[in-house]
Amino acid sequence: MERVRASFLENSAAGVGREVAQLKRFTGALCCGLAVSLFLTLGAGLAAAATSLSDEQFEQGKFIYFDRCSGCHGALRKGATGPKITADRMLKQSLAELEETIFDGTDAGMPGWGRTGELTKAETALMAKYMQLPAPIPPEMGLKDMKKTHKVHVLVSDRPKKPEHGRNIDNFFGTILRDAGQGAIIDGDTKELVGVVDTGHAVHIFRASATGRYFYTIGRDGKVSLIDLYAKKPQVVAESRVCLDARSVDVSKYKGPKGDFVDKLAVVGCYWPPQMVVLDGQTLEPLKVISTRSSTYDTNEYHPEPRVATIVASHHDSEWVVAIKETGMVWIVDYSDLDNLTMTQIATERFLHDGGFDATKRYLLIAANMRDQMVVVDTKDKKFVAKFETGVKPHPGRGANWVDPKYGPVSATTHLGEALISVYGSDPDGHPQHAWKIVREAETGGPGLFLKTHPNSNHIWVDSTLSKEEGANQQVCVFRKDQFEEGKKCWQATKRGKIVHFEYNKAGDEVWTAVWDKKGEIIVYDDKTLKEKTRIKGDWLVTPTGKWNVHNTVYDVY
Amino acid sequence: MERVRASFLENSAAGVGREVAQLKRFTGALCCGLAVSLFLTLGAGLAAAATSLSDEQFEQGKFIYFDRCSGCHGALRKGATGPKITADRMLKQSLAELEETIFDGTDAGMPGWGRTGELTKAETALMAKYMQLPAPIPPEMGLKDMKKTHKVHVLVSDRPKKPEHGRNIDNFFGTILRDAGQGAIIDGDTKELVGVVDTGHAVHIFRASATGRYFYTIGRDGKVSLIDLYAKKPQVVAESRVCLDARSVDVSKYKGPKGDFVDKLAVVGCYWPPQMVVLDGQTLEPLKVISTRSSTYDTNEYHPEPRVATIVASHHDSEWVVAIKETGMVWIVDYSDLDNLTMTQIATERFLHDGGFDATKRYLLIAANMRDQMVVVDTKDKKFVAKFETGVKPHPGRGANWVDPKYGPVSATTHLGEALISVYGSDPDGHPQHAWKIVREAETGGPGLFLKTHPNSNHIWVDSTLSKEEGANQQVCVFRKDQFEEGKKCWQATKRGKIVHFEYNKAGDEVWTAVWDKKGEIIVYDDKTLKEKTRIKGDWLVTPTGKWNVHNTVYDVY
Repeated sequence: MERVRASFLENSAAGVGREVAQLKRFTGALCCGLAVSLFLTLGAGLAAAATSLSDEQFEQGKFIYFDRCSGCHGALRKGATGPKITADRMLKQSLAELEETIFDGTDAGMPGWGRTGELTKAETALMAKYMQLPAPIPPEMGLKDMKKTHKVHVLVSDRPKKPEHGRNIDNFFGTILRDAGQGAIIDGDTKELVGVVDTGHAVHIFRASATGRYFYTIGRDGKVSLIDLYAKKPQVVAESRVCLDARSVDVSKYKGPKGDFVDKLAVVGCYWPPQMVVLDGQTLEPLKVISTRSSTYDTNEYHPEPRVATIVASHHDSEWVVAIKETGMVWIVDYSDLDNLTMTQIATERFLHDGGFDATKRYLLIAANMRDQMVVVDTKDKKFVAKFETGVKPHPGRGANWVDPKYGPVSATTHLGEALISVYGSDPDGHPQHAWKIVREAETGGPGLFLKTHPNSNHIWVDSTLSKEEGANQQVCVFRKDQFEEGKKCWQATKRGKIVHFEYNKAGDEVWTAVWDKKGEIIVYDDKTLKEKTRIKGDWLVTPTGKWNVHNTVYDVY
Repeated sequence: MERVRASFLENSAAGVGREVAQLKRFTGALCCGLAVSLFLTLGAGLAAAATSLSDEQFEQGKFIYFDRCSGCHGALRKGATGPKITADRMLKQSLAELEETIFDGTDAGMPGWGRTGELTKAETALMAKYMQLPAPIPPEMGLKDMKKTHKVHVLVSDRPKKPEHGRNIDNFFGTILRDAGQGAIIDGDTKELVGVVDTGHAVHIFRASATGRYFYTIGRDGKVSLIDLYAKKPQVVAESRVCLDARSVDVSKYKGPKGDFVDKLAVVGCYWPPQMVVLDGQTLEPLKVISTRSSTYDTNEYHPEPRVATIVASHHDSEWVVAIKETGMVWIVDYSDLDNLTMTQIATERFLHDGGFDATKRYLLIAANMRDQMVVVDTKDKKFVAKFETGVKPHPGRGANWVDPKYGPVSATTHLGEALISVYGSDPDGHPQHAWKIVREAETGGPGLFLKTHPNSNHIWVDSTLSKEEGANQQVCVFRKDQFEEGKKCWQATKRGKIVHFEYNKAGDEVWTAVWDKKGEIIVYDDKTLKEKTRIKGDWLVTPTGKWNVHNTVYDVY
């Protein structure tokens, strides 16, 4: 009963969590008799679902929703990469139907959380009920709240002036250990573990600072951690929690007439509250909050939850390129003067997700994946260039750029919703006839998350992590730049877990991929021969997923 | 009882009006027994005030609040020019105390609505009760809603190519007829009424298009009207309602390398929803919505209601300078490319209210009136310059600029909260020692709203509209540019109503002021002799307030 009260109160103010407290105050001040008669007048058409979760169960549902569902469906469940799943819609389905969807997933790309072992039958049943209750509204988070979470573990002045070890930092790899809430730093030269550090929950990405001295990680829980790679053992030297849900972090890379911003600033893109937060790059002190609450690019309707999907730091100006998912806007934000902050808001397409630069680093290539499109933004002239359909839910990660023997410079994406790699021209100056048009397509091993290449490589590596066919998500597929599909090779790389995400070493002659499993592994391939060189194993390798090479991350090599 | 339900439901979601519908759906779906026990658990500390308004009374209170209170206190009552007056705070005062404040006003500058005859005793009592109920949340308004209100009464192609009359449009005056929901166009040469047009409710300002051919009015109700002055009789040729509450409108004035925007665009600044709306300048078709929901400049906390206080069109670039009240930000918005929209967000001071340019039109001089400060923004370099205290709640209108014999170019403001005119240096190049510092102060006839001067005038005219002393708000005071206070003259200009607002004719040798009364008048003074030249009277002159000369408005002459 208690839970019903709480969920009602928290949900009634959908969109503005901070009003919950006000609301509680108000209800507290209302005449009890009045309140009763107030609700006595509401009778009619009543669902019993609300009765069936205890406070404890509701909290469990809230965590599972945050962990597995909100990324695609949004905190307010208004939909983005996944469809709108507000309580009123969920009440139109039976609990059995909901359980089936949650357990087995959908053909449209939703993972089967039961089938993959992430949720038990009991958890699935709980989630079906949870979905029929309105979404609880998370609170706001302002600078004062953030500052309470800010910790500097090692003062800037106490940090080493040069590396305290003889390792080659440029070829370090940062690896997410998703379910451990940790990150591992691995020496790319020796394949040795350099150290494991505690990070936020289920880190989404690593970014390297402009000099490569630091790694920044962003947890799903909004905690950003600063890892010093100069230290004898890599260590978290500062941390801040600046969101309740987050996916992106990047750094300032510009040095020029406007100032020297190398290693000076960091920026976190929040999912909730919908905002981006600028931090001191050396201490992670939160400096400025920029709300992303705004109107959709097309219908010009106010959206209460426009999430920051991706941030990429420009190499040619003091700017962050920020993709706002729900509104379909790309904001180019100039960080050179935070008090007089200039930005360009570019109308593109809903719902922006992930992307990176073309080979020249002038164009942002980003997926509007619920619209099955790739979007192109010119970060130099700061304007929309093109959008075009590729396949069902494109998902390029940071993307892959190479020179096709026939079509010139091209870029590519994989897809969440089908086993497809789409290759499109990305050289409007040299090959305008192919620019922003699909020039090649091929079948991959299954619906997947990532692809990757490197200027020194002759291959493009593709995963099929989301495939539901037996063994298919354990495959690796490789295409050749010079022959493309004719040179395609696929093989099963693991018999347990899933294969996910690729990263090259600095030289571009080795490819690392993860076996996403509680007993995880990192498989290292020789990019030339496609032969396995080694497997990195260890108790510490708990659910490895993404991995980032310092050099390739600093310079956006992909 | 019904009203209690509705007000509770509407208010519980403070900050996101559109969620009200969702909430109602949810409560409709809740088990009645549950709802009862839910509220039975809330007991304790209960106010009876909630019982005392019928639906009809609540609607009446809502309208009065919108009409008289929300301007200063905000739709959500979070405070701005007036203090925060949320229901929880109002419940700490007795109804008798609230009635006294509402009827008699406060020393801090709140008008005594009863004393001035705006509210009856019964309405005052109703408002006291209304204030102890939580604020109802107005809904959102997107492009689709706006387009439903869009009407083109005369097609652009059907409008005259040149004036259909022999009058001197440049010297036309547009005058608000506040309580009639109308505007009057008066011939400044002949003092004849040219025509009365229906506008939005309680128009806040007139703005002239860049050529002076059109007047735009913005109603408190968010309705913008386009008045064609070429027509034989001035007529509303297009209208749109783009907000539920609004104060500002301006036009595009730029012609240059980026394009010809003369008479091409209009922009409305909304109070609710908190947003600005760009419209086609010729048809008033709504084109783009820019939300102003964002974080405060200082504490970086999300604010659900940052209202657009003032918009001024730049004369040197394709930009609108937009003051956002609650967050204390000035946004410089480039309108030359709406799809790739660039703006600079400048941190200044809360709570921005009204202002205009300095004589060079480079600096925006704007009041942060709850902070007793004037703020200076450089619209050329797009950055904050200075802020400095003046007096209790500065309120310059568009301001007044002249050359002081001792201090060089200066600007000035009157005050809502005291009988004070403050003069400050505004020439940082020629007189840096005086720039943005108070150089002269003098007592006026009382707390007031406006002051005005003209380059061809030797005087500065000041009202004392807010004075509570018998007859004081019926005064006019005039200062001399060459002697300032020594040349001060004050006199009682009317025996009924209040004196409010000044405007010069194009030549700068006549000053018009309004007798704000149901039987209103416009008094025309000879600026040189200070002698009354004529009084414009007529049945149509219902509650005249602000008035704008076409030429002076186009070129920001003040």
